[in-house]
Amino acid sequence: MGVILAMDIGGTQLRAAVYPTNNKTPLEIKRAATRGQEPGAFDRLTALIDSIWPQEPVEAISIAIPGPINPYTGFIIETPNISSLSKFPIGEKLTERYHVPVFAGNDANLAALGEWHYGAGIGHHDLVYMTISTGIGGGVIAHDQLLLGSHGLAAELGHVTVLPDGPMCSCGQRGHLEGIASGPGITRYVIEKLAGGISSSLAAKSNLTTLDIAEAAAYGDELARAAFAYAGGYIGLALANYLQIFNPSIVILGGGVSQSGGLILDPIITSLQQHVMDPYYLEGFELTTARLGDDVGLLGALAQAHIQLAEK
Amino acid sequence: MGVILAMDIGGTQLRAAVYPTNNKTPLEIKRAATRGQEPGAFDRLTALIDSIWPQEPVEAISIAIPGPINPYTGFIIETPNISSLSKFPIGEKLTERYHVPVFAGNDANLAALGEWHYGAGIGHHDLVYMTISTGIGGGVIAHDQLLLGSHGLAAELGHVTVLPDGPMCSCGQRGHLEGIASGPGITRYVIEKLAGGISSSLAAKSNLTTLDIAEAAAYGDELARAAFAYAGGYIGLALANYLQIFNPSIVILGGGVSQSGGLILDPIITSLQQHVMDPYYLEGFELTTARLGDDVGLLGALAQAHIQLAEK
Repeated sequence: MGVILAMDIGGTQLRAAVYPTNNKTPLEIKRAATRGQEPGAFDRLTALIDSIWPQEPVEAISIAIPGPINPYTGFIIETPNISSLSKFPIGEKLTERYHVPVFAGNDANLAALGEWHYGAGIGHHDLVYMTISTGIGGGVIAHDQLLLGSHGLAAELGHVTVLPDGPMCSCGQRGHLEGIASGPGITRYVIEKLAGGISSSLAAKSNLTTLDIAEAAAYGDELARAAFAYAGGYIGLALANYLQIFNPSIVILGGGVSQSGGLILDPIITSLQQHVMDPYYLEGFELTTARLGDDVGLLGALAQAHIQLAEK
Repeated sequence: MGVILAMDIGGTQLRAAVYPTNNKTPLEIKRAATRGQEPGAFDRLTALIDSIWPQEPVEAISIAIPGPINPYTGFIIETPNISSLSKFPIGEKLTERYHVPVFAGNDANLAALGEWHYGAGIGHHDLVYMTISTGIGGGVIAHDQLLLGSHGLAAELGHVTVLPDGPMCSCGQRGHLEGIASGPGITRYVIEKLAGGISSSLAAKSNLTTLDIAEAAAYGDELARAAFAYAGGYIGLALANYLQIFNPSIVILGGGVSQSGGLILDPIITSLQQHVMDPYYLEGFELTTARLGDDVGLLGALAQAHIQLAEK
């Protein structure tokens, strides 16, 4: 019986894991530093693969990519934090080297697959996954199928305009959800209010992070709480849109910001209920947080391999 | 060989058509007035069905509903313009009476199916259809499948917030695309500007319609042109969101407003190009108008019957 080699390319870590084909408990996991701003990321990746390459026959390599990728061709369009992998045909290069089927997908899409197969979304047929951290990404399962679109670039759920003329997003557009409600969006909100003269315990901080703001909020800092409430309000508004667009039976929130508990979830839920156009969309509906933690990329890659191998 | 009985419930007309199973040219079409605000719409519908009931065996009745419907159960949730069909189990009632399979779907969803099978979308696998008239509705084909969601209420593409605190939508929410860019949204824009003292040939009109505004625009009226440009700007912004959400290879615009030519299409295209986050979304992408005209509801119902019968 063969094994699956799953990979997750993260901003700080490369992960590789060997899974038996019938099980989500890995036989082995290895990690290496990504060092994204240095050249040679592909060499570091293949060194990691070589070091973990198992005795058993490898049925497929399946890999999660932190950026837009065409999963039909295995061509990476962009990896904002790993310069040497942008515009890189990773599917082709890995197939050439290892002579096994290679499947590559966007990490947020694969996180949706992972939560659907192994995590909070088991048993659902229509699922929206949104990850809220440095960026806001997404993945959608519609009628038991991952939404990919014609070039595999679908489900950019953070890159939708929710406030025309709003703050600049990392993608260069204004007023996207990501620009407002990601970690950097929350930080910007606080910095702008501080510059406007609002008083807060955060005024003393240099190099403000979302974690600082969450801590200040826990101690009752009004500005910190307002920053999460503002972000949560827009996330709830966007989720109401997604309920009307996808009519999912579950929305799963992942990423660091979504782990801030009621601080972010309460305003999200209030805003979602306020903005949803019809209570039918909330019938049998569940809003929850991700279950798979740091392994979501690997398990998403594993799920992708199972689906692709079954279709062959 | 049997036939398909396709029905389209419109705001002003009920249509019924008998199609051979292998052909989109109807054997017969009949129409009746909807008289939506009078009771008895279901009786008028069955009278129309009885009058067209063919000699050949009927393999299915397939029906387009002007409002949200659960296509899995055949239960109509709401028909805003036909009071006696709201909260009505039309699937069950027609099955009881005619003893054949009955398939019911939302009219905008079925228009997407119709354009995909028989019209502008032939050969595409990922398609977004948006109808812009009194309301704004939508239908999405993702990976060769109609997007329905858990209760069949997906693809409400007009009911997404594009301008928080914007004008009130027919659904009671603020700032939805429909509230801004539907026919009534365009009319409201003109009325508000006229009330604000802007001069225009339209000031003389009572009971202003979108058609009046389109005519004035054709004669160079600045306010009329600005109204379409404003609406088109928000439609383009929403379409950029939908490119990022669905990554379709084609967007098809239907409905009366979309027939205003460059008046509405030019600002839509300009805004779409300005708001799309990455040129990859425009590679191989096509924006076009609907081809099926008034028959789109019937042909969509026909396509639905073919798909459902094939799945049985």
